[in-house]
Amino acid sequence: MKIIPKESKIKSIKGGICAVEGVKAAGIKKGKHGLALITGGGSAACVCTKNQFKSASLLVTKKHLKADKVCNAVIVNSGCANAFTGDDGIHNAKEVCKLVANHLNIPDETVLIASTGVIGTKLDMKIILREFNQIKEKLNSSPEASRAVAEAIMTTDTYPKEVAVEIKGLDSFRIGGVAKGAGMIAPDMATMLAFIYTDAIFDHKTLQSALKEAVDRSFNMVVVDGDMSTNDMVLLVSTEKKSGIESEEFQKGLNYVCENLAKMIASDGEGATKLIEVVIKGAATKKDANKAVKAILKSPLVKTAIFGADPNWGRIACAIGYSGAKVREDHLRIELSAAGSKVCILNKGSAIDASELAAKILQEKKVMIIADLGSGGEEAKGWGCDLSYEYVRINAEYTS
Amino acid sequence: MKIIPKESKIKSIKGGICAVEGVKAAGIKKGKHGLALITGGGSAACVCTKNQFKSASLLVTKKHLKADKVCNAVIVNSGCANAFTGDDGIHNAKEVCKLVANHLNIPDETVLIASTGVIGTKLDMKIILREFNQIKEKLNSSPEASRAVAEAIMTTDTYPKEVAVEIKGLDSFRIGGVAKGAGMIAPDMATMLAFIYTDAIFDHKTLQSALKEAVDRSFNMVVVDGDMSTNDMVLLVSTEKKSGIESEEFQKGLNYVCENLAKMIASDGEGATKLIEVVIKGAATKKDANKAVKAILKSPLVKTAIFGADPNWGRIACAIGYSGAKVREDHLRIELSAAGSKVCILNKGSAIDASELAAKILQEKKVMIIADLGSGGEEAKGWGCDLSYEYVRINAEYTS
Repeated sequence: MKIIPKESKIKSIKGGICAVEGVKAAGIKKGKHGLALITGGGSAACVCTKNQFKSASLLVTKKHLKADKVCNAVIVNSGCANAFTGDDGIHNAKEVCKLVANHLNIPDETVLIASTGVIGTKLDMKIILREFNQIKEKLNSSPEASRAVAEAIMTTDTYPKEVAVEIKGLDSFRIGGVAKGAGMIAPDMATMLAFIYTDAIFDHKTLQSALKEAVDRSFNMVVVDGDMSTNDMVLLVSTEKKSGIESEEFQKGLNYVCENLAKMIASDGEGATKLIEVVIKGAATKKDANKAVKAILKSPLVKTAIFGADPNWGRIACAIGYSGAKVREDHLRIELSAAGSKVCILNKGSAIDASELAAKILQEKKVMIIADLGSGGEEAKGWGCDLSYEYVRINAEYTS
Repeated sequence: MKIIPKESKIKSIKGGICAVEGVKAAGIKKGKHGLALITGGGSAACVCTKNQFKSASLLVTKKHLKADKVCNAVIVNSGCANAFTGDDGIHNAKEVCKLVANHLNIPDETVLIASTGVIGTKLDMKIILREFNQIKEKLNSSPEASRAVAEAIMTTDTYPKEVAVEIKGLDSFRIGGVAKGAGMIAPDMATMLAFIYTDAIFDHKTLQSALKEAVDRSFNMVVVDGDMSTNDMVLLVSTEKKSGIESEEFQKGLNYVCENLAKMIASDGEGATKLIEVVIKGAATKKDANKAVKAILKSPLVKTAIFGADPNWGRIACAIGYSGAKVREDHLRIELSAAGSKVCILNKGSAIDASELAAKILQEKKVMIIADLGSGGEEAKGWGCDLSYEYVRINAEYTS
């Protein structure tokens, strides 16, 4: 996906996380089992799943991060979620962190671990040890190293996801991120991992609040299937090279990186053939706007209609109707937009016969649904994908 | 679907709604356009969609029912939802009621109308008039007449849905119902219509509270795709023939009829290959139990796993984890059951290696998921279906 900066000051650059000074990375992927190692960094912030069940890896990461809010290294495995693995899961996660800590000669508590894959099976420590030995000497700061990490953490993703930007101002700084998504993507995150690095110096508290804001308007507005995983996390780490960065500028850059990673995750949802962007306008409250966005993106009927390029706007209106957002039928307006074309299919609650143009718009790879609830001045935006035969195939066959 | 009464006093009988004395029916189905007429009855109760957008037909029905709480006739069309049709929709719905009222020489306000089909197109009054003329003289009380109604109201249903029971006691009475379901089935109802008749005499208030209770534990516990339609209604009408019926006995019979119609709707969910029954035990509150049931039934990941007969219990545990129900990982127990076999796949939060037997169980047409949250003594039950390629095909092609 090509990234076109919206603000002149934000410049898209190459290199993913390795575009940030101080970051070194390495990754390997063999079949379903991948391992990635990222080093560098100091102050860190983390947002994670709200699922009551959290993977053992995530529990260890939270404990480590709570201790001194510093991240010197991250180790990520794919192929096994290390969730529902009890005390053994905790023990294994700690062992993996120790392995990294010993090799890098850093405290255990500054090593974080993330896992993604099948729930209920234990980490295969032999595979992890073997793969770790293969990558531990390969740490470097090339664009290829960031790409190797992005590839190592993939599960059912079809392409690696990286973004890097340079924000030019009085003092320029960089933010780079890698992510994986694909299934179990829901509001409030899901089997979704993102690791974001910046050279801008901020303390933990500032990073945490910036990350929370950026995640709320990006990853938390992505819906693939409505399932919320046990393993999700978004990590933000500062390599502490550039001082005096304005937090407002930083927030803009971070929002940009998160939004672009989130869009990549939506467009690469399991079996997705189309990226759907939903824009809700005219909502009474921001909460209402969010509710309407998510109801549309979650609706299997909307998702299948868009897969079939069927301009069945009734399903969109219906989803808004049960979303809980305040809306008046005689004020509702719905437009479809893609590739520079736009068509209004419902105006003031009345259907407009434009199904031919609407069907043509829905043939595009990126489709926008814009709905005005006519109830106020609040807006929200979110991303999802269509529901295809391929989604069913992938998930009917995942563990077998 | 064969119905085996759970209580000796409830006897399954033939004839659907026409098993109830005083009911006459007629129906016709030509392509996508069906029309059904049911006559007879007095006191009536109705439960309908909570979607903010309600079809014009439903609005007219609510108005009529509010006036004197009596139903002398019901007219139902399939093929057009008469939703998002503005003033014309209201006008058309009233005209159809008038047509029926004039023919039967009854007040307009005692005629109720229901519609199901595509949202956003107006009723084709010519088709309705033509079909009405074809059925108006055919009203009769044969089992075939009830079957004709059940068939006329089908949209993507693959089989007509009827239930009738006789409840034998000091005074015996009957309850019969027809229903349609298939898509947009969600908690709190959806494109789901059910018309239930009884000869037991009760006033509107008693009928309404009995219906509310029966719907809450049956239709409102069915999930096909999580979408809630603009058109749903469950109607209960008394033909007022049998007096002195105990309300407790009546409630049992009504629960039985509603639960069986609900199961039929779940098993005939769009593209369904399997009926899923979810039983939650050990919940802290009834609300928690309901939340967990619905989260499992809604999860596309659980639904696709069951379609693929993949014993991926992690997805079930994961859905419980984000359902909002109180649960402890080290107390959680999950069992699968079908055709007399049962297997525990998770006990006290630890996986049990029984995937071979579990996979065999998931090959059955009716699969039960039993989960104990280990947090209290409350229980709940619900029904849904798997998510197949066929669901995607049906909904990608619905209007086109």
